[in-house]
Amino acid sequence: MQLATELKPVSLIGFGDGAEGAAFTGMNPATGSALEPKFFSATADDLERAATLAQSAFPIYSNLSGKNKGAFLRRIAEAIEAAAPAIIQRANLETALPEARLQGEVGRTCNQLRLFAELVEEGSWLDARIDSADPNRKPLPKPSIRSMHKPLGPIAVFGASNFPLAFSVAGGDTASALAAGNPVIVKAHPAHPGTSLLVGHAIREAVKSSGLPEGVFSMLFDNGVDVGVQLVKHPAIKAVAFTGSFAGGTALMKLAAARPEPIPCYSEMGSVNPVFVLPGALNKRASAMAAGLQGSFTLGAGQFCTKPGLVLVPQQDGTPAFMKELSDKVSATPSQTLLTKAIADRYTLAVKGRDVTVLAEGAKAEGSPASATVQASLFVAAYKDLAENQDLAQEIFGPTTVVVGYQDRKQLLAVAEQLEGHLTATLQADESELAEYSDLIDILTRKVGRLILNAYPTGVEVCHAMVHGGPFPATSDGRSTSVGTQAIYRFTRLVCYQSFPDAALPDELKSTNPLGIMRLVDGDRTRKPSA
Amino acid sequence: MQLATELKPVSLIGFGDGAEGAAFTGMNPATGSALEPKFFSATADDLERAATLAQSAFPIYSNLSGKNKGAFLRRIAEAIEAAAPAIIQRANLETALPEARLQGEVGRTCNQLRLFAELVEEGSWLDARIDSADPNRKPLPKPSIRSMHKPLGPIAVFGASNFPLAFSVAGGDTASALAAGNPVIVKAHPAHPGTSLLVGHAIREAVKSSGLPEGVFSMLFDNGVDVGVQLVKHPAIKAVAFTGSFAGGTALMKLAAARPEPIPCYSEMGSVNPVFVLPGALNKRASAMAAGLQGSFTLGAGQFCTKPGLVLVPQQDGTPAFMKELSDKVSATPSQTLLTKAIADRYTLAVKGRDVTVLAEGAKAEGSPASATVQASLFVAAYKDLAENQDLAQEIFGPTTVVVGYQDRKQLLAVAEQLEGHLTATLQADESELAEYSDLIDILTRKVGRLILNAYPTGVEVCHAMVHGGPFPATSDGRSTSVGTQAIYRFTRLVCYQSFPDAALPDELKSTNPLGIMRLVDGDRTRKPSA
Repeated sequence: MQLATELKPVSLIGFGDGAEGAAFTGMNPATGSALEPKFFSATADDLERAATLAQSAFPIYSNLSGKNKGAFLRRIAEAIEAAAPAIIQRANLETALPEARLQGEVGRTCNQLRLFAELVEEGSWLDARIDSADPNRKPLPKPSIRSMHKPLGPIAVFGASNFPLAFSVAGGDTASALAAGNPVIVKAHPAHPGTSLLVGHAIREAVKSSGLPEGVFSMLFDNGVDVGVQLVKHPAIKAVAFTGSFAGGTALMKLAAARPEPIPCYSEMGSVNPVFVLPGALNKRASAMAAGLQGSFTLGAGQFCTKPGLVLVPQQDGTPAFMKELSDKVSATPSQTLLTKAIADRYTLAVKGRDVTVLAEGAKAEGSPASATVQASLFVAAYKDLAENQDLAQEIFGPTTVVVGYQDRKQLLAVAEQLEGHLTATLQADESELAEYSDLIDILTRKVGRLILNAYPTGVEVCHAMVHGGPFPATSDGRSTSVGTQAIYRFTRLVCYQSFPDAALPDELKSTNPLGIMRLVDGDRTRKPSA
Repeated sequence: MQLATELKPVSLIGFGDGAEGAAFTGMNPATGSALEPKFFSATADDLERAATLAQSAFPIYSNLSGKNKGAFLRRIAEAIEAAAPAIIQRANLETALPEARLQGEVGRTCNQLRLFAELVEEGSWLDARIDSADPNRKPLPKPSIRSMHKPLGPIAVFGASNFPLAFSVAGGDTASALAAGNPVIVKAHPAHPGTSLLVGHAIREAVKSSGLPEGVFSMLFDNGVDVGVQLVKHPAIKAVAFTGSFAGGTALMKLAAARPEPIPCYSEMGSVNPVFVLPGALNKRASAMAAGLQGSFTLGAGQFCTKPGLVLVPQQDGTPAFMKELSDKVSATPSQTLLTKAIADRYTLAVKGRDVTVLAEGAKAEGSPASATVQASLFVAAYKDLAENQDLAQEIFGPTTVVVGYQDRKQLLAVAEQLEGHLTATLQADESELAEYSDLIDILTRKVGRLILNAYPTGVEVCHAMVHGGPFPATSDGRSTSVGTQAIYRFTRLVCYQSFPDAALPDELKSTNPLGIMRLVDGDRTRKPSA
């Protein structure tokens, strides 16, 4: 493995190396065996240096032009692509995710970086606003007021385990925080340290080749919680982004709120992603839905935060046939290896503890008992089970879902009303049913960040309109999204200038509009100069 | 006083009356005597009813068209204008603010409501986004994704004492929360209960005459903290807006973060609003600045959250003359009556406790010792006093400020670097100095929400580009503004629809763009239909 010989398995502190703190290794979840080399956790001193570097890089990096930030983001993508074979090989060993999936994830990660590059190069995202002066206004003259988004400061990003590339070291949080003009300190996920190191070095190379100050990026290793806790508490840090468990996400929220200077904490904590099958859809597309559902809840071994974990199905003529078809597909599902042994153990325990009928199970896990390989499972329950036991609406991470039968529209609406916040809700409906169920759509709109019609929630498009968010407990802050270009606004704040002349204003706010960006001038969206 | 005979002095629970809980009265701060009638605090049952009504109004109100919301906001403005003589008379008794100021504040309050009406009638504020489908994309077809801002749910608004109209019952927080489509429950400030009651009735009348459900607006009285605490803890409440003290604002932040479902809390907690006088400005405009500063820090008896409480002045030839002129103006300042006796006592204590030289004092307070009348004061300190004692950079609410002399540019930059978050920073500079001091501007941009050149921070324009915010501790959440149209985004969240046909989409997101609003279609800002 190239990794061991070429790169030091320590934290990246700006352009320097971290110390050799407590040692840990990545594990191969398919075999349960440790992967070479040993990695070393960051020390308190490493964290302090990373924070100091980030703080001193901020004034410079925050003033970088959109064009230069865009070039930097593109260089990160290129460096990742150059290292892709090694990254994919290592990530496959560390996560058991198949190479094709990891290849796709490299593509997604790099496309994401380039989408943010386009966004900041173009510049309209800053929502520059100009309200012109009116010296003749009565009773008081009106001053000129000009505002735009500005970066917050150094951001702590926690790599996620389930997307070792797209939601990890160079994932959406890092891309959007850097795009907004903030230095980033990543806490690498200990389940894929080698992958993190390779990607971290790619970012470091891009920082260097872009001539940027070294504090723009650092990455800290730790297989415990201490480094993450101290990172969130550090006064230099101005916001936190996390994707992971509810326990982890809420712990960070509490830390962020309890600081002497409280800071925003964006925790994306997953969700059950309920699917509502309407009668007409079941009548017309039962087979396709059985296949679609099985494909969606077992995709990536059921480790997507958008995995459909609860399916509402009408009790009607075609239901038994649909259930039979779905069961058959689940029974035919091969065993799958989860990201870590700990996740596999939690999955097995949660599935065993689920107090409703197991309708079908996939192939049994073969091989070493030390592996993280598990079998898929399908549960079935009645409306009253769900009404009495909201545990059924709790996420189990892994390839399992529960189908709940409903008798009538009233029960369906009651389930929707009882939902907590989720990332997504999916409607399987015949188009002719949409008007009839507009009240259901209305309820779901208040519960989730994304409503999906006649598709499946897994697979999150990276685009301008995507909302990967949702009310608590799906996320810490349902106002925002962690995927798509709107994710950039998590890491900005508004600043305005009163009565400043062009010469002292940022280019984005000059009357002449030298960047040609779209702005809000006296209430009108325009690329024209202001008066 | 009409108030006593016509309106019941109890909380407004939807269209109904609150109970007669603990009694309290408004006080005349000019005399220290109680004002008739007695008001009654809300009970736990009142709060519960208000919350339940708000919750059930939300699905209806949140779906109201922009045109109808606009009409409602305009009706509130008309109802306030119709009641303006009574409101101003009562507010003058309760706050000692002069009638002309209160007249202006009525105008500002109504203009603010109408500005939000325009915003929601026009509709582009929703930032509707459409990313078109591409069924031929490889490797996977691209679904259509469409997003927009949606309201959060019932909002708790805490009326401020210092702007009994513009930041109180129908102030900026209420206007922006209603404009976004959220029901509002106001906790009325106990220092102006009669004013609150009159304005609350104006809003209630507008709810009725607009045919809206009664839960869209309620208002709770309490002269303690209990009702406010229970309101923030209530599960129906989805965000909090507050303007007031640091102690009050941080207490609400903690409550909001500690809920089972944490919610956003927007506390605007005031600030010192430092003024940086550069050498060239002092050379050229010393007299004008002495007048401007005195006018600004004594405006509204120094009870603006944007009052300049710290002035950095260069030590140079003209400084003694400037200080003399400023001192003379402060000495000639009449005594002023603060909003409450408690505020006056805190002011007097804080001024007495300030451990630097008093350079000048205004006219002594005459009249009843029970009144809230105080004298203006001007302090002077050296750079080292400020460096050693950051208390000098803490806000004292009332007509006082401190002038700190600096020796050189290095000291000036050090002061700027040491600042915590503030609402504003002001630069008094000759235009020729701006390039030379670009580093100062850069530092200040990271510390405040609004940078002002050659004017004074008091007076906050209500417009599209205004940012009345700033990093903690100026506010709880430096990402946002509480004044201007961008304030609406404090009370919204993003929702997206995947693969929905026009018929099942909100008008804002239909391909045909029936509302003709500006949208982001495949990355381009346009009013054209989408493909």
